[in-house]
Amino acid sequence: MSDRPTDQLREISITLDAAPYAEGSCLIAAGRTRVLCAASVEDSLPDWRAASGKGWVTAEYGMLPRSTHTRTRRERGQVKGRTQEIQRLIGRSLRSVTDLAALGPRSVTLDCDVLQADGGTRTASITGACIALYRALQGLVEEGEVERHPMRDLVAAVSVGIVDGIPRLDLDYALDSSAQVDMNVVATGDGRLIEVQGTAEGDPFTREEHDRLVDLALGGIERLVARQREVLRGEAG
Amino acid sequence: MSDRPTDQLREISITLDAAPYAEGSCLIAAGRTRVLCAASVEDSLPDWRAASGKGWVTAEYGMLPRSTHTRTRRERGQVKGRTQEIQRLIGRSLRSVTDLAALGPRSVTLDCDVLQADGGTRTASITGACIALYRALQGLVEEGEVERHPMRDLVAAVSVGIVDGIPRLDLDYALDSSAQVDMNVVATGDGRLIEVQGTAEGDPFTREEHDRLVDLALGGIERLVARQREVLRGEAG
Amino acid sequence: MSDRPTDQLREISITLDAAPYAEGSCLIAAGRTRVLCAASVEDSLPDWRAASGKGWVTAEYGMLPRSTHTRTRRERGQVKGRTQEIQRLIGRSLRSVTDLAALGPRSVTLDCDVLQADGGTRTASITGACIALYRALQGLVEEGEVERHPMRDLVAAVSVGIVDGIPRLDLDYALDSSAQVDMNVVATGDGRLIEVQGTAEGDPFTREEHDRLVDLALGGIERLVARQREVLRGEAG
Amino acid sequence: MSDRPTDQLREISITLDAAPYAEGSCLIAAGRTRVLCAASVEDSLPDWRAASGKGWVTAEYGMLPRSTHTRTRRERGQVKGRTQEIQRLIGRSLRSVTDLAALGPRSVTLDCDVLQADGGTRTASITGACIALYRALQGLVEEGEVERHPMRDLVAAVSVGIVDGIPRLDLDYALDSSAQVDMNVVATGDGRLIEVQGTAEGDPFTREEHDRLVDLALGGIERLVARQREVLRGEAG
Amino acid sequence: MSDRPTDQLREISITLDAAPYAEGSCLIAAGRTRVLCAASVEDSLPDWRAASGKGWVTAEYGMLPRSTHTRTRRERGQVKGRTQEIQRLIGRSLRSVTDLAALGPRSVTLDCDVLQADGGTRTASITGACIALYRALQGLVEEGEVERHPMRDLVAAVSVGIVDGIPRLDLDYALDSSAQVDMNVVATGDGRLIEVQGTAEGDPFTREEHDRLVDLALGGIERLVARQREVLRGEAG
Amino acid sequence: MSDRPTDQLREISITLDAAPYAEGSCLIAAGRTRVLCAASVEDSLPDWRAASGKGWVTAEYGMLPRSTHTRTRRERGQVKGRTQEIQRLIGRSLRSVTDLAALGPRSVTLDCDVLQADGGTRTASITGACIALYRALQGLVEEGEVERHPMRDLVAAVSVGIVDGIPRLDLDYALDSSAQVDMNVVATGDGRLIEVQGTAEGDPFTREEHDRLVDLALGGIERLVARQREVLRGEAG
Repeated sequence: MSDRPTDQLREISITLDAAPYAEGSCLIAAGRTRVLCAASVEDSLPDWRAASGKGWVTAEYGMLPRSTHTRTRRERGQVKGRTQEIQRLIGRSLRSVTDLAALGPRSVTLDCDVLQADGGTRTASITGACIALYRALQGLVEEGEVERHPMRDLVAAVSVGIVDGIPRLDLDYALDSSAQVDMNVVATGDGRLIEVQGTAEGDPFTREEHDRLVDLALGGIERLVARQREVLRGEAG
Repeated sequence: MSDRPTDQLREISITLDAAPYAEGSCLIAAGRTRVLCAASVEDSLPDWRAASGKGWVTAEYGMLPRSTHTRTRRERGQVKGRTQEIQRLIGRSLRSVTDLAALGPRSVTLDCDVLQADGGTRTASITGACIALYRALQGLVEEGEVERHPMRDLVAAVSVGIVDGIPRLDLDYALDSSAQVDMNVVATGDGRLIEVQGTAEGDPFTREEHDRLVDLALGGIERLVARQREVLRGEAG
Repeated sequence: MSDRPTDQLREISITLDAAPYAEGSCLIAAGRTRVLCAASVEDSLPDWRAASGKGWVTAEYGMLPRSTHTRTRRERGQVKGRTQEIQRLIGRSLRSVTDLAALGPRSVTLDCDVLQADGGTRTASITGACIALYRALQGLVEEGEVERHPMRDLVAAVSVGIVDGIPRLDLDYALDSSAQVDMNVVATGDGRLIEVQGTAEGDPFTREEHDRLVDLALGGIERLVARQREVLRGEAG
Repeated sequence: MSDRPTDQLREISITLDAAPYAEGSCLIAAGRTRVLCAASVEDSLPDWRAASGKGWVTAEYGMLPRSTHTRTRRERGQVKGRTQEIQRLIGRSLRSVTDLAALGPRSVTLDCDVLQADGGTRTASITGACIALYRALQGLVEEGEVERHPMRDLVAAVSVGIVDGIPRLDLDYALDSSAQVDMNVVATGDGRLIEVQGTAEGDPFTREEHDRLVDLALGGIERLVARQREVLRGEAG
Repeated sequence: MSDRPTDQLREISITLDAAPYAEGSCLIAAGRTRVLCAASVEDSLPDWRAASGKGWVTAEYGMLPRSTHTRTRRERGQVKGRTQEIQRLIGRSLRSVTDLAALGPRSVTLDCDVLQADGGTRTASITGACIALYRALQGLVEEGEVERHPMRDLVAAVSVGIVDGIPRLDLDYALDSSAQVDMNVVATGDGRLIEVQGTAEGDPFTREEHDRLVDLALGGIERLVARQREVLRGEAG
Repeated sequence: MSDRPTDQLREISITLDAAPYAEGSCLIAAGRTRVLCAASVEDSLPDWRAASGKGWVTAEYGMLPRSTHTRTRRERGQVKGRTQEIQRLIGRSLRSVTDLAALGPRSVTLDCDVLQADGGTRTASITGACIALYRALQGLVEEGEVERHPMRDLVAAVSVGIVDGIPRLDLDYALDSSAQVDMNVVATGDGRLIEVQGTAEGDPFTREEHDRLVDLALGGIERLVARQREVLRGEAG
């Protein structure tokens, strides 16, 4: 098991434009977890949304069958509850930092496809989808389609948990499998919370443990957003 | 909108054995929200679980089409992501207080069917399912099927949120619709946390707001568990 | 098994407005069988019906998983043939007493959800749906949406059968399980037939037995319609 | 519209062994309605039936897309309620004249596929399926697989209805489309009833009308069974 | 196994108008293989095609459950890959000889339903569908709906293969089951190719074997088209 | 459009072990087309295959939603006919060079997931899947699970077509879109054919054109197999 310090993130790398046909995209790696994130912009809205004239951002999440140690079936015919939860979480997280009125009558679909899964695929998806979305909307700004960039802030996410009684940041698969508590936190660049999802996998956890996990997560997210900014400024990959 | 104090629960009523064919059941009402909770015990395990010899507890959630102000379609052909999330949450919450080894090679299905929906259906489902499960397992104790009651503690749940900038306990539909933040908390009788699911519906929320919501929720859950105990002791309905 | 006289109905109770958000509803109980019936009115027509300008009445039927002695699976993914037959029967029965031209361009969906099943759920559904529909259409009259009440008559239904060689009225589950012949009859308040569905479960039956069953059923339906009238006049529950 | 006398059947023709790979089969034509009926015998039982050791007879019904005046969609993905009702009716009708214990641990599937549809396809399916089943079981007798033929009697079916106020036997599509009452009757060679399914398409019908329809149907079925006997004795086609 | 010469077709018979409600139809038999082909014309286009104003021709393929030696399940709920391949092949083949602009804003669906299957059902479907389509479009010409017949040529298909090392024309089921190579060829009346689909069932095949198979197939198709012409001129069945 | 000579392949690159959790894998790029191929070995057989004791090789094919110029829907709920055809083709091609008896009671699933699609994804999938399979089976040899490598030869595939009247090797998307004839050829390292699938997209094609296309394809496949050999010997990427 990892000898990484308990409050340290796994190594992050972000490759811009990894899906060159998409309006915005990146390949994000957090340790051995690798997710391809692509943003697709369409000049139309879902029917239920059309009357509002406001934009919409939604997400789809998938895992390649051999992203996992043993092969995972393709979700043909039946989308798993886990997949739906993750898709809804990614979509909600990105919408919360997007000015949908400023986006106008456009839909953005964020496809997050896991090429390799070693824990934290949903949080890496959010962090990567933020970059894909930012790039795609930047394209709209450059083409004069929208007046100003519709994102109000960046957003990133990380998992935390309690393993062997010790709170830890950024769980890989081995840590996650033995965690007593598992929590995913999504927050903005200015440190405000978008989602907190903490779950006791075994025994319930105390209020103090809960607070310590939120602290750890917010520290990690601050560093993730710093990295997003570097990449978007063209300083780092 | 409600003039109920911000830290007060809606009126609760619990009717035991409302589904008389089930091994355990209750009808729980929180204000105008009404959920029929039934526990069904089977002497078998799902295939993937069989080798372990340990029991399993799972949940299904449904809404009658006219539990809502306007008719909701039946989920035939496609179970919605929301439904799957709720089902997984109920199952996980109840498993976390159940000694599955003590349950032995048995499966319990907790059916939570919403007869009337006025906000907080998932949390009422958890609070009610706890009673249905308790009763069903008590039956196993009385018949000598298990040596001791497999539940280690009771569990209850409540929603909290920020409405017009003010943290509030136990949101009904009107409050929930205008909440900026929505949080569901599940906790045990001894005040420990099982699930915390906080979501920014609009703007992100601060760390301080988050902490205040968890406090409010734990206060409400303490009162819900007290009521569960009265009902199970035969003191109240 | 029942010592109820062979030509006597089970005890009936009808609670109006049991689904308070619906335009019309009741909870009907026939012995231990309990069905929640709700009528939902929409100001639109299905596509295939739109050109006619005439109204439409349709029904959906469901059983809560633990309405039965052993748990019944939810019909997600595959609606059973039995369910479809019952839904079609309920819809056809109610349409036959409704002046669809007078209803105008409106659809009514009748949801019949079985809370407890002890035989005769489809006939109780028809008898209860009639009340829910009557109440919903009365609402349209009171709001001036339609000029006169579109129902031409009330409708009720009952099962009859041959058990141990003896024709019997209103079979509960125990009687139904041992019946050689099972027949459902739907008729109007003025004693005319809408549906006769007789089935030999074991040996075929003679013409004389068939006639005796229709007689028994028409007698029962007369009493059911009398009860419907009392309830709708506010005299009984 | 037809000038056929009101108590006369359409012309019937029955071609034995029309599906030569099947254990028993025929092509039955009633006027322009044509149905290919094939019986398939398997030496196994469905799981739920296995313990009983008794045989099982089931039916499937289909319409070729261009059996109808305008093309009908194939039932891929969703079997219609009408199809399910018909399948269940055919299966029930044939089981009621078959000694399932004498059939032993074997399943028979009766496939009724409509090549041309001009009204009365479900009743022609029953009359034809009876011949296919008889032939298939005769094969078992000849091979010494069963001691005696498991069918206790033949079975046939016909539709009757009230058209322009007049009771009529054996409705073709044009008559059926304008019928006020539609009834399908299934009966045995000795004149006993297996199924009576009468439905008011428009106004309800009186008890007297109902009785007249059953009389007409039983008369038609007597002639159909006589024809089945000739065909099975090799006297007619 | 067959003692038919290796370069000879099975006996062909074609019955025009076998599905009398269809705009064009035939029953084609090749040896014991029998397929009912029906062409349905609709005055509308699929949505994706509407803007073009050009016609569309598509195909559906099915097998009756007892067209095969042992019963084949109905494709309800899941259309098999094999079926989809065949449907796409039939549609593509017929479109390649049809002037879709001349057809105008109309859709033709070609239903090919196998009544009896003894090998070569997909090629018989193409040869028969050509006749059904020709007849249906002739109807449009006769009614003045189109100016000239939209088909530029006839099309026919046959299978060839290598069995026991010997190239053979028109494989029946027994030959097909033991073939090392299986090839389906579709060609026009003037001897040009539309589809060549050759597959090694066991060992790969040489370039020379491949060429010999194409030669054999083109010879067979020449005779099939001659027969189609006779039938359409009214000279033969 | 491309100025590549008409008989030249696009640039090929092959990265071994691109899906590190798989038993064998590669990322193959042909021009801008990129496919991730992964072989998964399981020590079990599908039920229908179990009795034989012989191994099985099957394939699944998918496209990431943004592998294409405009977003392609995920195949959830309904696998397209095109996908099924491709999956069946890949599986058949690889089985034809594998000694399934030597493989023993093991299943190999070949997942071919298109990361970027610029024409020729099915042929690149076959060429890449061959390498993934070779590597996975080499692992079985090295672990002593099988005595000798079960592949008898390598296999590769390429598309050819007629564009503007000129036969061309290895069509990219732009060429493929304007091709009059499209042909996919699969062949072995020793130049024998496994599959030939030629289709007229517009006008039919002559026998001479067909022969020229097969020649071109076999030339390209020879060079692809040479490259596969280099990569597997560790000489090139």
